[in-house]
Formats: sequence, C-alpha cells, structure tokens
Amino acid sequence: MSKTSAQPPKGTRDFLPTTVRQREHVVGIIKSVYEAHGFQPLETPALERLEVLSGKYGDEGDQLLFKVLLRGQPLVQGIERAHAHLSEPGALVQGRSGTVAPKADVLLSDLGLRYDLTVPLARVYAAHHAELGSIFKRYQIQPVWRADTPGKGRYREFYQCDVDVVGSESPLVEAEVASAALECMERLGFTQFSLRVNHRGLLRAVVAQAGVAPSHEVDAIVAIDKLDKIGPEGVAAELAERGIAAEASTRLLELLRGGAELDQVARFLDGNVAGQKALGEVRSVFELLEGTRAHARLKFDVALARGLGYYTGCIFELASPDLSGSLGGGGRYDGLIGMFLGRDVPACGFALGLERLLLVMQERGLFPADLGSMEILLAATQGEPARRAFLLAAHLREEGYHVSLLPKPEKPARLRKAAQEMPADFAVWIESSSLHLWDRKSDHTLRNLDEAGLLAALEEHQTGVVRLQPT
Amino acid sequence: MSKTSAQPPKGTRDFLPTTVRQREHVVGIIKSVYEAHGFQPLETPALERLEVLSGKYGDEGDQLLFKVLLRGQPLVQGIERAHAHLSEPGALVQGRSGTVAPKADVLLSDLGLRYDLTVPLARVYAAHHAELGSIFKRYQIQPVWRADTPGKGRYREFYQCDVDVVGSESPLVEAEVASAALECMERLGFTQFSLRVNHRGLLRAVVAQAGVAPSHEVDAIVAIDKLDKIGPEGVAAELAERGIAAEASTRLLELLRGGAELDQVARFLDGNVAGQKALGEVRSVFELLEGTRAHARLKFDVALARGLGYYTGCIFELASPDLSGSLGGGGRYDGLIGMFLGRDVPACGFALGLERLLLVMQERGLFPADLGSMEILLAATQGEPARRAFLLAAHLREEGYHVSLLPKPEKPARLRKAAQEMPADFAVWIESSSLHLWDRKSDHTLRNLDEAGLLAALEEHQTGVVRLQPT
Repeated sequence: MSKTSAQPPKGTRDFLPTTVRQREHVVGIIKSVYEAHGFQPLETPALERLEVLSGKYGDEGDQLLFKVLLRGQPLVQGIERAHAHLSEPGALVQGRSGTVAPKADVLLSDLGLRYDLTVPLARVYAAHHAELGSIFKRYQIQPVWRADTPGKGRYREFYQCDVDVVGSESPLVEAEVASAALECMERLGFTQFSLRVNHRGLLRAVVAQAGVAPSHEVDAIVAIDKLDKIGPEGVAAELAERGIAAEASTRLLELLRGGAELDQVARFLDGNVAGQKALGEVRSVFELLEGTRAHARLKFDVALARGLGYYTGCIFELASPDLSGSLGGGGRYDGLIGMFLGRDVPACGFALGLERLLLVMQERGLFPADLGSMEILLAATQGEPARRAFLLAAHLREEGYHVSLLPKPEKPARLRKAAQEMPADFAVWIESSSLHLWDRKSDHTLRNLDEAGLLAALEEHQTGVVRLQPT
Repeated sequence: MSKTSAQPPKGTRDFLPTTVRQREHVVGIIKSVYEAHGFQPLETPALERLEVLSGKYGDEGDQLLFKVLLRGQPLVQGIERAHAHLSEPGALVQGRSGTVAPKADVLLSDLGLRYDLTVPLARVYAAHHAELGSIFKRYQIQPVWRADTPGKGRYREFYQCDVDVVGSESPLVEAEVASAALECMERLGFTQFSLRVNHRGLLRAVVAQAGVAPSHEVDAIVAIDKLDKIGPEGVAAELAERGIAAEASTRLLELLRGGAELDQVARFLDGNVAGQKALGEVRSVFELLEGTRAHARLKFDVALARGLGYYTGCIFELASPDLSGSLGGGGRYDGLIGMFLGRDVPACGFALGLERLLLVMQERGLFPADLGSMEILLAATQGEPARRAFLLAAHLREEGYHVSLLPKPEKPARLRKAAQEMPADFAVWIESSSLHLWDRKSDHTLRNLDEAGLLAALEEHQTGVVRLQPT
C-alpha cells in the first residue's frame, strides 16, 4: 500500500490530548485574569487581505508572511505578471539558499495568514468603532503564523494572548495591561520574573540629548537595544560602526554604565521637553501600581527598545532572569489604528507568548498532575451483551460521570490495564450479569453490584467516605 | 490621512465580544458532551502539506483548497514552471469567470489550509498510533477553510466539531458517536431534529440488486441522494438522463416510493450477501441505542448518500424538519487512515457544523441572555486621584469580581449610562473620597460607603439577602 508521509508541516505541531489539556489549562488561567480585568473576547479570521498585513511589520516581517495563492482567472494573470517581473532588472537577488525574487510573491497572492493580533484589532476597531464604544478593552487568544526558521520554542504556528485598550491616552491603561500580564504570570505559578519598562519617546529623547544626529536615531536605538546581550563595550563598538559621533556615543554610554535609574535619566534629560513628558508617563505607571503586587515586578530599563514597529509610548517586556528572550511584550501604539480609520486613536496593549510560557512551565513542572483524567472506563466481558454496557454508560453520563466505553468485550484484567494506562479513575465491567467496580488508586475491586450499588459506591468514593474493600 | 479598507476577507467574519461568548457557549456544551462520552481533545496545525490534502476530497475539493504560496528560491522555480505549464495544451480551460488553469496552482504551492478535521486525524493517527493505544477516541473543534462561494450560513472559514473513534469495527462506535451528536443537540436546546441513518454498502447493494450496471453505480447513487429535494419523479428523470436502464430504474423507484423501511429493504435485498451484512450493521446501531433518548431520533433513510467521499459503512446526517441542508454528518471510513499508515485501520466519526447550529440558535433565540456580562464598572470622578480607583479595582479582583476600570475620571451619571450599555451589573465610583455603589437591576444607589461596606453590600447582593436602598 503506497502511503503519504504523516508529518505536519515544518515548524508546526500536532497536539495530542495531554498537551491540549496543558495548553487549555494555561489559556484558561490567562482568560480568567483578562476577564477579571474587564477585557472582552474578540476573534478575527486567520486570513487577512494582504493589503492589511503589508507594510505593518517592516521588510523582514513582509517576507515572513504566509501568503495565499490567487485562485481562478486572477491566478492565470498573476503567473503572467510574476513571470514578466522575474526578467525586470533587480527582481532577482541572491538569498542565503539561492536566487530569490523578494517582490514576486505579492503578484501571486491576495491573502495572508495573520502575523500578529494587533493589526487585526486595529482593523476591527476601525470597522466597528461606533458599536464598540469610546473605550474598547479586548483580549484575543489565537494562533498567528510566520514563515520563520523554526527553532527551540520558535514555531511557524504559535499562539499569542493579547490584551489591549483602545481609545484612551491615560497611563491607567498602561498600568492595567501590565497588571493583567503580571497577574497571569503569578497565577501560572511563575515566581522569578520582572517587567522591563521603557518609553519610545524617552529613548528618542535620550539619543537626541546625547547628540546623536536625527538621521542616526534608529541606528543608535538598535545598538542600545543590544545592551543586555553585548554589554556597554559591544554597544560602543556598534555605535562607532554605525557612524555615530564619538562624543554622542560617550555620553550615551556614561548614562547606560551608570545603571540609568529613572532619576539619572531625568537629570540627563534636563530641559528636553519631549523627554520630560515621556518620563512623566513612565512615572505615572509606576505610581499607579504602587501598593499592588505588580509594583515590585516593574523594572525601568532605558535600553529596552522592542524592535522598531508601531510603538509610540511606553513599552514593556516580560523577562525571567534565567531565560534569554522574552515571555511577552507590549506597549502603546497611538498611530496604528489611524492607518485603517483615517484618524489616530490611542491604544496600548500586551501580548503573552503562549509557546514560551508552556515550554518553561514544562521544564519547571508547573502543570497540575491530574489534568483531564478519565473517570470511568467501562466494558462488557466476553459473552455479555454490549447493549447492556451501552445503556449503563448512558445512565452514568446522565449522572454526570465521564465514561469511556470500550467498543469490544474485554477480560477484566485487560480492562484494568487499559484503565491504568489512560489513566481512568475507575474500571467498571459486566461479568456474569452483574457489575464490578475497580478503583485505580487503591487497586481494589468491589464485586457483584447492581446498578444502584455501583452508583452508591461511586458517589461514596467521591465524597471520600468509604474505602473500597480489597478483592 | 490615507487608509486601508477595514473589511475582513470575503467569506470570513470578525467576532465581536457578544458573538464570541455565544460561540463559546455552544462550543462549551459540545465539549462537555464529547468529554462525557470519553473523547479526548486533539489539535492540529491550520496548515497541512499539500500532499496530505490533495486527492482526499475529490476534484471539486482540490479546487476549494486555500493553497499557500511557495517562498524563497522554490517560488522562483515555481513561477518558471507555472508559466511554462500555461502554454501546454489543455492547461487553460474556460471557467465561469474567465480563463482558468486548474492544475497550475500545485506548481506554486507546498502547503494548504486544513479543509476538514478527518484527514488531519488520519494523518495524526498514522504518525502516533503506537502511543495512542489500540482504540483512540478524540474530539477536535477547530476552524477549516474552503475557497467556496460564500452564502447564508456558508463561509470560507468555519468551525467543525468532530468526534471520531479509531481502531474498532464494532457498531458500538457508530452508536457512541451518534449518541454524542444527538445529546449535543438536546443540550443546546434543539427540540425538532432527527438523525438520518444509512450505509454505503447497503446503498451499493440496493443499486446492484435493482440491476444497475456497476459502471453506473455512482450515477445511480448521486440521483437517489436527491430524493428529498426533487421527489421520485425527479429521481426517475435523472436516472434516465444518466443512462440507467429503465427496468433497474423502475425497481429502484418502487422501493423508494414504498417508504423503504428497514424490513422492506431487507426483503428487497434477499439473497444479496453484502447487502445483508450492511443491513445487519445498521440494525445493530438501532438495537444498541434502544432504551436511550437517542433511539427516537434515528430515522433509517435508504436515499441518504453523504457525497461520494471516504465513507465505507454506516453514514449519518443530522436534519431538522424546517431546515434545508444538514446540521452535521458522519459515518464510517475504514480506508482513509491506510493512505497514511500503509495498512487499513477502521474508523468512524461525526462532525457537527458549528456555524449552522449558531445561525439556527440565533434565529430561534436559544442563547441565554446573560452570557458574560461584566460585574463591576469602576471609575474615579473628576478631581479624585485615579490611583485610588486602581487600587480598589485590584482589591475587588482579588475578591473574585470582574472589574472594568474606566481609564478617565467620569461623572456618576455618565458612568451609570456606560454600565447600562455594557451591561455591567454594578457601577462603583469614588466621589468626595467615599465609595458609591449603583445596582443596574434596581437602578438604585448606595452612597458613602467605605471599602468594607462596599464589599459587604456586593456580597449581600450576590446571596440575594439584601435589596439596595433607593437613592
């Protein structure tokens, strides 16, 4: 018999029952925390029009989009156009793995797979702002897709767990999303974690104040962002390499080397109006969280940059001291919704990365042991009519038990072994026309019960009043 | 400000909070029924390798797959090949909307979006059968994608809710999945519905017994399948049109006109060994369900065909008398897993169509009214420090309340209006340094509380002991 390979696509995973239950455990906790903070659920399609996705994530992001092929007549035209494009000067460039045509794909595609949950939120808000009210607090827990090189904890399909508040410039919003994210971590059982806090306006002011030319702002920020990876000397080298004046570089490094606490940065930015405003916004977040458990987790970090995407104000990154990379991040993005709505609407949010959380929880054994064990495994033995087992299963389910029915008659020993492996709390079988109940925990069997006796024994066991007798 | 259209792709939908809660209500009930029947959760990636999807759903299905564009160097080669293909004889054909190239797409694609949940199950079982045990009972509730023409209740992204049992030929399995599907319907609040039952082997035997040539078997089945839409005369016309001998057609129509109860079909199939075997399997399902609430819902229907896909044994379709089309369907497919595993493994399952269920429940008002209303909307008034509101919100959440915090100071009247609209059960505000609690149901306010007084009032209200005093 010829056969097709049974592997899922590269960078994606099948989740077997135990894993699904672990994922649902984590998602359930995150949802309950988001709900407790007054966020409402939103879901958007996996597919977005390519126009919606393009240009939102930078050039690299555009290349990582999974694009869906045109269909019907547009595909025929697309092939003609894409083929013509290949012979245009500059269309073909040398990539890591051979000749590539970076701009050919958009000629053959109209849709892409969702790349994050923030752009879809901005689109939905623009389409529905009238019915969503002046302030919209939503959470969204769905997969996103990126055609990235897979690695440990890095997949091509992965879940994000986002909270966002649209419609307010108040720092209360920053405090609210930070508080929600930090409470998720606590409730999941993490003990060592902190939330790095910075502000894009602050970062720009610091760079300007140090004397970096506006044309080199992005270069300087990219270099500073690497501080915790390459250290101050590494940053100095990178600043020099990117052509930033030695004097400006020296001033920046003095600040970074000094630890750059909020007060130091305030002194550094003396007289810089934009910088002082940004500083005030950061201070507000710290003040609002005073007195809550979240406060001790906040850690101002002037070197945090969070890429160069759509952020405009405060930025956050969730870090664990013994983990490189982040467990989540977020910030304020007051310009993104305007791309869809035509006028700017302030917004701020946070995304927890489900896959990394799961990976760490797995490594640290943070999952409860009994996620979704089966209650009763039931079978008829050889010669007994299966119909009676079927009826009994239906009856037990009506009483609220989870019952798995073995579809073939089975010997009691094999049934118990199957219950052991599942694991099921109890095995029940029909033998010589009466019922037998085996309890996995005590490995004991109650024999020759009628249906009322079985139900009574199950109920007593649940209340813990009675121990089953030894066989 | 230039802007991008905010619409989701054609045939897909954004789900705002109220809709998400309705969907979660339905999915929650279906999950609980599936779990009570001992099924375990499985999740698979949205993307499948094109090789996995191709050839499983017929030619029409292949055309409805959303295919993902190649990336990098393979895309350049794909464009060259697809362009060369266009000039081959027969590559271009005239479609409804212009010139199309039905076989060009596979040259440009390596992945496709999941088309159903059965093929992924077969693939997963083949990859993991050793760890999944000899019998694997799984449920899977995930979206699937089809590039179909959208219409009422027909979308390009839609959810299926599948249960399947892999590894057993016993009719207990058919009874189990049918029972689970029917209990879902009951628990969702449906009253008028039935499960049409037939058997692919029975259908083939009937057609053969009537004297239809084997070469016309599929034609005859396709015609019979339309009985409830076009009536016996319509079927007769279609049989003639498809070139089926008049004598065979007459015999078939005699059976169909006679109502074709199980006993009549048994007499009709007298001496047909395959037919009698199939009949026995159908009878077993009816017998196993005797005495359960599911039994009254079963309706044998010799004209049910369920397309011409991978089914090999019993087939089911969930119907509601005042609805055209089905709410779900399933059956036995003993050959599909073999395509991935290299040896046949019996399997049988059922899929509920979430979107149609939701549509009907919406039309019939089957949703509870209070799905996910907010408990407390909280704000500071003008001049009061927001920090106190933030701390109070944190405290109320620790007490287990769902609290939404307005990010700006608000006048009490506006706050109450916002709570009315959300809806939130209570509005709480800080005014003149004390707390005020408004109850939406009674539209009354308790004034000048301290925090302990607020908590006591909320708690009393929950136990129903105390009515709030009029303002």
